[in-house]
Amino acid sequence: MREMIIIGGGIAGMSAGIYAARSALNPLILIGPIQGGALTQSHEIENYPGFVDSIPCFQLTDTIEKQARRLGTEFQQETVKNIEKISGGYKINTLSGKSLEAKTIILATGTKPRNLDVPGMKDFYGKGVSSCAVCDGFFYKGKKVAVIGGGNTALYEALYLAKICEKVTIVHRGAELTAEKITQELVKKVKNIEIIYESELYALHGENVLTKAEIRHNQTQKKQFLDVDGLFVAIGVLPNTDFLKGFIDLNPWGYVETTGKSTATNHPGIFVAGDMIADVFQQVVIAAGSGATAALEAEHYLHNM
Amino acid sequence: MREMIIIGGGIAGMSAGIYAARSALNPLILIGPIQGGALTQSHEIENYPGFVDSIPCFQLTDTIEKQARRLGTEFQQETVKNIEKISGGYKINTLSGKSLEAKTIILATGTKPRNLDVPGMKDFYGKGVSSCAVCDGFFYKGKKVAVIGGGNTALYEALYLAKICEKVTIVHRGAELTAEKITQELVKKVKNIEIIYESELYALHGENVLTKAEIRHNQTQKKQFLDVDGLFVAIGVLPNTDFLKGFIDLNPWGYVETTGKSTATNHPGIFVAGDMIADVFQQVVIAAGSGATAALEAEHYLHNM
Repeated sequence: MREMIIIGGGIAGMSAGIYAARSALNPLILIGPIQGGALTQSHEIENYPGFVDSIPCFQLTDTIEKQARRLGTEFQQETVKNIEKISGGYKINTLSGKSLEAKTIILATGTKPRNLDVPGMKDFYGKGVSSCAVCDGFFYKGKKVAVIGGGNTALYEALYLAKICEKVTIVHRGAELTAEKITQELVKKVKNIEIIYESELYALHGENVLTKAEIRHNQTQKKQFLDVDGLFVAIGVLPNTDFLKGFIDLNPWGYVETTGKSTATNHPGIFVAGDMIADVFQQVVIAAGSGATAALEAEHYLHNM
Repeated sequence: MREMIIIGGGIAGMSAGIYAARSALNPLILIGPIQGGALTQSHEIENYPGFVDSIPCFQLTDTIEKQARRLGTEFQQETVKNIEKISGGYKINTLSGKSLEAKTIILATGTKPRNLDVPGMKDFYGKGVSSCAVCDGFFYKGKKVAVIGGGNTALYEALYLAKICEKVTIVHRGAELTAEKITQELVKKVKNIEIIYESELYALHGENVLTKAEIRHNQTQKKQFLDVDGLFVAIGVLPNTDFLKGFIDLNPWGYVETTGKSTATNHPGIFVAGDMIADVFQQVVIAAGSGATAALEAEHYLHNM
């Protein structure tokens, strides 16, 4: 039985891996569908302490992966189906049919972008609709796109797309953007970004591919049709905790409950790190910090086992 | 009146500065006696996620300072005497006689190692002497080290080091260890840990780097020379919170009390980050994470003021 298995290969999981490897716990990280986690779906980062200028997100995830590997963290590509309590630890069952045993587990599966369930959304997903500007922005070079949302993610997506696309229209349901001020100011300076406030996406139209986004004003209910080739949904995230339902204590939104400063869950020996923790700010350096805390708490737990 | 003043120029304070600057709060960091904080007192760091190999600690502090400055954080060298509540915020009085006003304050003055003032201590600090096994233990892989102290911290340091090092000698001045029994029992089971009781460190010897620790028995005064490559002083750290006594809620050891995951203190608008928070692991990436949390909580507080 292993000392520690970390579920999730994003920043939180890899930070836990770095700490656990240095504590000679020989940790194994089970990478989910995306090596490097949610951060790889963004373009650049400038608020992770340690780099004077903005750096590409893939560079940060790639560097941290190399660091974790160098210190002795192992990686396997496995998606977890469920976890069972067994004598002296836990059994992790994967979708590929494997079973892995460990005395401690760190949960670090993060979040995924939230969907917007409007007519046409499913039809045009991958045919104009995307939730990742970095992944798909290039397909809309010189074209018109819309970004749905008004938070940090939405504005970063818009800034990224504005460099590639002819025009970017931000559609936000609030009367004010919710992103950090510095990002709002940047966006407002970019000539080919337009912001439509107090409006929501109502339907998507097109033949084989998306050509029009139908939006409505919240107050007046007035319809408006935007001619767009691409539409990026950036209205928040959902925790990747479906595989934990009924086993780990989750809050009503599906985030993992913890008590005080601890990363411990309701199962002794199972700790949680990163964006899936209830009531934390979803920021890279905060995820990295909680990964370190989870690994150190797991180490203390093993000492006292 | 400023939006935010951050007291302390270590990693936690500068991380808060990066976040606050990006939120257009125009933060001012008051640097205490050590620009860059406690981290500058260590040699190398390899567990801060973001760098494949170990980097010099001053390089990390220096880079984060440049990053904070680039984003608009200001710095002033001022040591704080005390804080007073005033209408709409707080007044910070400095030892140099200045008074500065802010709506929000982030406390980030960290800790200082409890001193052991013996001959050679200053010469070999960072050249064999450390006060952090998690930070520096890996550099002594396969080597012999000593740990000075008999409390929980010392024993955890010893347990951590025993997995990495050939031999760990704990030198404790009492006839019995003071750590929790469970930890004592764990330590006594580990074959490559030896405990020397009723003895104190007397001097350190070596040429360019540490090679011998001279200890003396308390009762008999008998000298003993330990061949060691590393020596870890684990007689504790002290929070730099003297200036807060009687104003901010501190725990019996002088750390700042907070509730749950919040960095808020008992004074609305005053938040705390880094190693001076009660009941957190004192690690760089954890301090950086809490700095980001404190800045984001302060920003929310200002929005709702």
